[in-house]
Amino acid sequence: MPRTPIEYRNASGEVRAVFDDIKRTRQVEDVNNFWKYLAHDPALLKRTWASIKEVMAPGALDPLTKEMIYLAVSVSNGCGYCIASHSAAARKAGMSEAMFGELMGVVGMANETNRLSDGYRVPIDPAFE
Amino acid sequence: MPRTPIEYRNASGEVRAVFDDIKRTRQVEDVNNFWKYLAHDPALLKRTWASIKEVMAPGALDPLTKEMIYLAVSVSNGCGYCIASHSAAARKAGMSEAMFGELMGVVGMANETNRLSDGYRVPIDPAFE
Amino acid sequence: MPRTPIEYRNASGEVRAVFDDIKRTRQVEDVNNFWKYLAHDPALLKRTWASIKEVMAPGALDPLTKEMIYLAVSVSNGCGYCIASHSAAARKAGMSEAMFGELMGVVGMANETNRLSDGYRVPIDPAFE
Amino acid sequence: MPRTPIEYRNASGEVRAVFDDIKRTRQVEDVNNFWKYLAHDPALLKRTWASIKEVMAPGALDPLTKEMIYLAVSVSNGCGYCIASHSAAARKAGMSEAMFGELMGVVGMANETNRLSDGYRVPIDPAFE
Amino acid sequence: MPRTPIEYRNASGEVRAVFDDIKRTRQVEDVNNFWKYLAHDPALLKRTWASIKEVMAPGALDPLTKEMIYLAVSVSNGCGYCIASHSAAARKAGMSEAMFGELMGVVGMANETNRLSDGYRVPIDPAFE
Amino acid sequence: MPRTPIEYRNASGEVRAVFDDIKRTRQVEDVNNFWKYLAHDPALLKRTWASIKEVMAPGALDPLTKEMIYLAVSVSNGCGYCIASHSAAARKAGMSEAMFGELMGVVGMANETNRLSDGYRVPIDPAFE
Repeated sequence: MPRTPIEYRNASGEVRAVFDDIKRTRQVEDVNNFWKYLAHDPALLKRTWASIKEVMAPGALDPLTKEMIYLAVSVSNGCGYCIASHSAAARKAGMSEAMFGELMGVVGMANETNRLSDGYRVPIDPAFE
Repeated sequence: MPRTPIEYRNASGEVRAVFDDIKRTRQVEDVNNFWKYLAHDPALLKRTWASIKEVMAPGALDPLTKEMIYLAVSVSNGCGYCIASHSAAARKAGMSEAMFGELMGVVGMANETNRLSDGYRVPIDPAFE
Repeated sequence: MPRTPIEYRNASGEVRAVFDDIKRTRQVEDVNNFWKYLAHDPALLKRTWASIKEVMAPGALDPLTKEMIYLAVSVSNGCGYCIASHSAAARKAGMSEAMFGELMGVVGMANETNRLSDGYRVPIDPAFE
Repeated sequence: MPRTPIEYRNASGEVRAVFDDIKRTRQVEDVNNFWKYLAHDPALLKRTWASIKEVMAPGALDPLTKEMIYLAVSVSNGCGYCIASHSAAARKAGMSEAMFGELMGVVGMANETNRLSDGYRVPIDPAFE
Repeated sequence: MPRTPIEYRNASGEVRAVFDDIKRTRQVEDVNNFWKYLAHDPALLKRTWASIKEVMAPGALDPLTKEMIYLAVSVSNGCGYCIASHSAAARKAGMSEAMFGELMGVVGMANETNRLSDGYRVPIDPAFE
Repeated sequence: MPRTPIEYRNASGEVRAVFDDIKRTRQVEDVNNFWKYLAHDPALLKRTWASIKEVMAPGALDPLTKEMIYLAVSVSNGCGYCIASHSAAARKAGMSEAMFGELMGVVGMANETNRLSDGYRVPIDPAFE
């Protein structure tokens, strides 16, 4: 069962091609553990990277905003690995500690008011339909 | 049980003061249903509004970014009312449809990779600690 | 596929026995929709009722406290049917509107601070281990 | 990035004022890690404590009931830190092991039946509207 | 904002190409609403379909098992649209009502015991590492 | 508070009877930690085991399919203990690494599309009602 990371030196050509593209795109020396574990299923690795690469590329939203949205969702889901890795990625993309604090404030309030809306069974205002 | 909205004309002075501040701050004619239902518990109404007002004020992050983070969390939590109201709020703050589409792409991928990380039990890279 | 409720008059003897026990235990005229849908799988119906009956019986916690915990979890999970049915059940067990408002306040804050703890990656204090 | 706790001796006056109020209100020697990490954002620290203090004060619900609801939500959300800290808080407020066991039973059943309701798409009974 | 479905007759060539491939692959007359709404963002539509097509193709797991896993996750997440659409898809792939009932039983128990494990803070057995 | 496992040698007769039945049913030498912690509440232990035993028995779905559904929900909920224990159980029931990779692919996509459906507020197609 997938318990150990697959390092570049032990990877198949198919996996190496994905690792190479990640390293080139992100300008990093090595890929992080997430990819080394997904490598147990090369099709999953390849598909996930292709999607992430497309989704996180600059577009109507800049990379920092995208990284902060990614982090906000990961915090809200309580995913330990993702919080650690996307905190680092957002910081690298320019998130200051003040920005992180405000992001956490928004994530906290959203989680609070999401439940208040559900609990009070608030009907959607016609203006929002 | 809280089943009906509390309208301004039927509200206590304490509730009206909060409604007035919401209308003034947001430059709106009337408060939306969320506040009319919370008004069943004036302390909850007052505290929630005070927190939201502080959290959503411009700071290290601009209002549009905050609204998009709020929306991203609400989508990830599947809160129907919150998705409707914060889609409207984010649009009002400047979110284009292209930005919404990219936001959805990030929220979708974050939810996917959060589970992949957990399922493969990926250990946190020393560089992220 | 299970799209319609199974009414008493159309139910098998096995299902009727469960319905009878629910009506007797709760002192109600008819079972609510939840049970009429579970009745599509008599084993699931029987097992779920047996567990609920045991869990919700008075013990170290009184029935009102149990109903409020049930409601708090249902609100936190955003389950529309469960929020409606357990609000009614908690009210019947003695929950006042003031108690509901405070319950919602606690559920909201718990959801907020749960995410703050995860996002700041707060280590558990030795005193709590 | 917030990786280390802020201890009282290194804290600003603004942070110390919050820490002092927590210690006074809860009659504890030191604040727990949660507050030492939030202290990286003094506004977040202050707002969160003010809300928690208000929400957890005795009212229509007693402190033990509030702590158990807090714990139930934290368990349901799978927040490790919160489960540890609120188990301790609930115990301090009078939760016995028998009460904890029954609380867990309710949380478990609520999570089970929340999904059964959603999966069978059970419509809300008119009596619950 | 994306409030209306994009029908084939109003779709761009890029969107039509995806719709055509969905119809061909699934042997259906028309695509379901999910795709008509994603069509507001052609890149999101194209990427999501490409991933779903690859993921749901027969492989080490047969299509029915895949559809049931998809449904189980959707039920557990409480996604109304997904429960409706994947119930239909699983049924079409061969899921009987008895299978659905057992699936619901497993989903219910998994949600219950997931919380019991977290709440009791059960350490992982060495045999499972 | 339940911090230590209850081993067979220290268990009451009531707890031993459950442990014995688990060992006999699963053909294992010892029960895993989950049961040793639930043993702090013998009624919870007994009820949970009785339900799991019934739910996981072969029926319209075979044991491997049931274990994979259990695992998929546990991954989706991010329950660390459950992922570890049910990965082991599914593997023992015949899940290959290729099957695990495909299961993860489905769980990932379901989590992604669940949020896309909610975020775009997709109405249920008449054909799915």
